[in-house]
Amino acid sequence: MKIETLVIVGVGLIGGSIGLAVRQRKLAKHVIGVGRVVESLQKAQSIGAIDEFSLDLENAASRADFLVFCTPVNIIPRQILTVLKHCKPGATITDAGSTKSAIIAAIKPYMSNHVAFVGSHPLAGSEKKGPENADATLFQDRLTIVTPHDGNDPKDIEKVCKFWEAIGSKVHLMDAAEHDQALAMTSHLPHLLAATLASVLPEPLSPFTATGFRDTTRIAAGDPTIWTGIFQQNRTAMVHSLEVFKRQLQTFQDALENNDTTTLNSLLTQAKKVRDALGS
Amino acid sequence: MKIETLVIVGVGLIGGSIGLAVRQRKLAKHVIGVGRVVESLQKAQSIGAIDEFSLDLENAASRADFLVFCTPVNIIPRQILTVLKHCKPGATITDAGSTKSAIIAAIKPYMSNHVAFVGSHPLAGSEKKGPENADATLFQDRLTIVTPHDGNDPKDIEKVCKFWEAIGSKVHLMDAAEHDQALAMTSHLPHLLAATLASVLPEPLSPFTATGFRDTTRIAAGDPTIWTGIFQQNRTAMVHSLEVFKRQLQTFQDALENNDTTTLNSLLTQAKKVRDALGS
Repeated sequence: MKIETLVIVGVGLIGGSIGLAVRQRKLAKHVIGVGRVVESLQKAQSIGAIDEFSLDLENAASRADFLVFCTPVNIIPRQILTVLKHCKPGATITDAGSTKSAIIAAIKPYMSNHVAFVGSHPLAGSEKKGPENADATLFQDRLTIVTPHDGNDPKDIEKVCKFWEAIGSKVHLMDAAEHDQALAMTSHLPHLLAATLASVLPEPLSPFTATGFRDTTRIAAGDPTIWTGIFQQNRTAMVHSLEVFKRQLQTFQDALENNDTTTLNSLLTQAKKVRDALGS
Repeated sequence: MKIETLVIVGVGLIGGSIGLAVRQRKLAKHVIGVGRVVESLQKAQSIGAIDEFSLDLENAASRADFLVFCTPVNIIPRQILTVLKHCKPGATITDAGSTKSAIIAAIKPYMSNHVAFVGSHPLAGSEKKGPENADATLFQDRLTIVTPHDGNDPKDIEKVCKFWEAIGSKVHLMDAAEHDQALAMTSHLPHLLAATLASVLPEPLSPFTATGFRDTTRIAAGDPTIWTGIFQQNRTAMVHSLEVFKRQLQTFQDALENNDTTTLNSLLTQAKKVRDALGS
């Protein structure tokens, strides 16, 4: 895989890590970072994540052979629709957004044979943000879900898969709706729970938190704007996962209230089994 | 602080870490580990956490000047009541249990001037267990809550505080009931939520978990037996904390269902503020 000009839109943790990985592996001749904040783009350039930067999305897009959108999910559709008419024929677009159905639904009516969009979601990240936390190995041996939609050319799907593989990721193809349901449970619900728990901690109790509270709430430090967009786009699947969670929580609560140690032990044993299987 | 003979009952992660810290700092002339599993005690001895070990709690206790019980909270009262009549006059007993009221209530009626018990809870630990994970620095700069009860001699309270300080911990005095309410929110509820989340993960979705799910559920890997005891003893305070959590969760769910991004953003912003203040 060799890209002439790669454009990364949004050069934060994810975009910066893509840039670092691409440049270290020499997968693109030229990498342009697009953003709104000059200081952040300069930082991305100084760490070697991009060759040059631009504040002009349309102009940068007109030079791109491959574009990756690493902006918040609620911004991605608008940005992609903006660049479509400026892209070179044959350009390939993908993204790194945590939701897929809403993005595809917003873009699909406007797609032509001129430019291809295939959605992606690398399951890598952190509660940290900004190019200063970028890491060329962020995608190494992690999974990227690629969500083709009807109308995608198999060659474009393959091109997007190869892009993620080239920066170290494993790739899994999945339907967008199936992706959103899975991620509601594996990522968005955990974020909701972490945020809820963090927000009910009375300030005077902060000194009495330890590793357990800190681990359980770590992702609540994520960017509220990014997560509001994710929650909004995937709210139906999230509410479904939340209902499943609440039923199990009620089972735990009943066992507590009934001093039913057999059930408590059995629930905790089942939870440990699942968690142990995930590894550290 | 210099102890002639220290007895550590239960030489797992916590007991083993106490032993390592005490021996490295030469705070006791002799450290005896008591347990039920020879292999585990041998392991504790081989890593230098104890000088010798015994399967005979009563005999070991008869030699002790200071005893620390690091066994599951539902076992601690029975073990302490067992050793009381075997202890030397003037011996001091403390524990490392995550609940305090139930332990004190069970022991208090049987206390005499002969032996002192002052409850403790070091806010340090891990989902890991066993002496093989013991760490001499586990308590360094961490907080230990000491919960004196009426009838405690100030000298004994001071002795227990000095013990934890001598192995690197900061000490905070607190009423046992207040401790249990605080820890229900900062430790026991997080464990309940982590376990609930882990237990509703459908197995086929395991590959689609990433750092967020793993952080949020990490403590669910804790020992079910230990946590069943904690849940049982602190169930009233836990149910109270759980009700607070559920009300906030409902606020989140309402905002999701109403597509109320203003409220979602505000809740996530508040959560991030709390989490950021806790540090990494």
